[in-house]
Amino acid sequence: MPPRHDVADLVSRARAGEARSVARLISLVEAESPALREVSAALAGHTGRAQVIGLTGAPGVGKSTTTSALVTAMRRQGRTVGVLAVDPSSPFTGGALLGDRIRMEEHATDRGVYVRSMASRGHLGGLSWAAPHAIRVLDAAGCDVVLVETVGVGQSEVEVAGLADTAVVLLAPGMGDGIQAAKAGILEIGDVFCVNKADRDGAATTRRELRTMLSMTQRTDDAWTPPIVLTVATTGEGVDDLVSALDEHHAHQQASGALERRRRARLRREVEQIALAEVSRRFELGRRDRLEELAEDVLAGRTDPFTAADELLAATPDGQGGTLGRAFTDRAADSGTTEPC
Amino acid sequence: MPPRHDVADLVSRARAGEARSVARLISLVEAESPALREVSAALAGHTGRAQVIGLTGAPGVGKSTTTSALVTAMRRQGRTVGVLAVDPSSPFTGGALLGDRIRMEEHATDRGVYVRSMASRGHLGGLSWAAPHAIRVLDAAGCDVVLVETVGVGQSEVEVAGLADTAVVLLAPGMGDGIQAAKAGILEIGDVFCVNKADRDGAATTRRELRTMLSMTQRTDDAWTPPIVLTVATTGEGVDDLVSALDEHHAHQQASGALERRRRARLRREVEQIALAEVSRRFELGRRDRLEELAEDVLAGRTDPFTAADELLAATPDGQGGTLGRAFTDRAADSGTTEPC
Repeated sequence: MPPRHDVADLVSRARAGEARSVARLISLVEAESPALREVSAALAGHTGRAQVIGLTGAPGVGKSTTTSALVTAMRRQGRTVGVLAVDPSSPFTGGALLGDRIRMEEHATDRGVYVRSMASRGHLGGLSWAAPHAIRVLDAAGCDVVLVETVGVGQSEVEVAGLADTAVVLLAPGMGDGIQAAKAGILEIGDVFCVNKADRDGAATTRRELRTMLSMTQRTDDAWTPPIVLTVATTGEGVDDLVSALDEHHAHQQASGALERRRRARLRREVEQIALAEVSRRFELGRRDRLEELAEDVLAGRTDPFTAADELLAATPDGQGGTLGRAFTDRAADSGTTEPC
Repeated sequence: MPPRHDVADLVSRARAGEARSVARLISLVEAESPALREVSAALAGHTGRAQVIGLTGAPGVGKSTTTSALVTAMRRQGRTVGVLAVDPSSPFTGGALLGDRIRMEEHATDRGVYVRSMASRGHLGGLSWAAPHAIRVLDAAGCDVVLVETVGVGQSEVEVAGLADTAVVLLAPGMGDGIQAAKAGILEIGDVFCVNKADRDGAATTRRELRTMLSMTQRTDDAWTPPIVLTVATTGEGVDDLVSALDEHHAHQQASGALERRRRARLRREVEQIALAEVSRRFELGRRDRLEELAEDVLAGRTDPFTAADELLAATPDGQGGTLGRAFTDRAADSGTTEPC
């Protein structure tokens, strides 16, 4: 881990566009190192410029190919692009798959593109919690656009929508009927829908079904009607239309104030999550043995989970670090003097 | 909501196998009503008999059909079956889809089968937290087997594994290659794998790929080699083999002590989650305004999320309910007198 002054230096270099420093900073946030706090503090005031786009969709719809095609199209327009591929669905492996790391090879020599894979850190049920920090690093490094691509469907899609200014939902013909899309909960979160592999049979049907289902869906932002774009990412067909749709949504959000509202809501959630994670961390210290006993009691039918939870909460010994309330205050008080290791 | 004495009565009636009381109890736990605590307490000591089987897999593999075929096969053996269909992926709609509610029609008149759909209650990133309670209701009601089926893939699969004694992962030929399965994180969690739609082209290939990938996967329970069963759920082909594989896993777990270990770990997580949910709930009270201000500060670049989280934690006013530490104690103290509404 770098000494304190190095973090400021890394941020300066990253802001000047030095790829090695960007990589270093993302590694620091990804490792949840003690330096993460410092990186976060050093980035304050240098972010908020990038257009953050989330891409999501079921395995097989062509997310990687579409991401790559978007990079090509945006680079042609002279925009710099950061790509973050997050794999939230594999808490057990703890490392991004090789496939993710190599698939953007074609952009490897382009200095206007930065590609990074991140594995989930096992933050149950969610995207890597380092993702928002990594997005901020790319933002501060001057990326005009940050593309966040996730692996997996379901809840992670909803979370991508939470991370991004614009959420793109990818579908492909024949990947399942409308009710499956509805089940996956994607109708409410997509700002732009993209039917990829549109050269296959059924693309028009998929678009029509999607249109019908969208018309029946209650969206938060009523002023925006999500467009449906047809693409063939492998050939680049329709990709410029997709870029246009993304830019239209961005412009609409800026004009309506929805962008600021969304970003504020995002930060509210993030601050709250960091605080709650700290609460949980403190809470878990020193309670393992008692929890083990209580689980045994529930298993044996001597008590129920709620009563056991009450007992767990009541079991905070005042001797070891005091009440949780005090723990918060301690943490807040010493946070200014945390030394990176 | 029923008065207190009715909960005990409902549990008695449910234990005697009265379907209406089972339905009522599940509604009480699903609604997270104040009676949930009472239901939970009344069930203590009456659970642990049922074999809990989780079914998971991507949309389109035939989960519903396979569940239904399993019910048919198990009923033929004279076993009573409870089915819980959980939809964790649609936090926005707040209601199970009609499709789930009607698809088990064929078992509707069988008194040895109880079918229930549950929507997620928006518990971010997860299965409905009412699911374990609903499983216990079905268990106490005398179901020999409880089948838990989830909609969606990714994280929810991992959570199903956490809920069940035996986790079945369904696949279908041509639903994507091996790397997609690996990405979805399903290799580590499946106790039994089922290649459904095995009359389609590619079933043998899917089985072979799966076998290869499983051989490279590190599993927690090394003593068990997950079998791969081929089924055609629509015709019932292979379904008896699937039932046998499920029973073999159950017997293996009982003999090795893994069943008790898994159940204890499950209860540990559940007790901890209830306790943490209570911490979060208390934590959120009275802090909304401050959080709003802090998010605004981060948005404006005046501070960063970690410093903001520290300030949020330090902002607990001692006047309104005291420190969180005290809040726990209060909660534990008054939990015995909670009146259902």
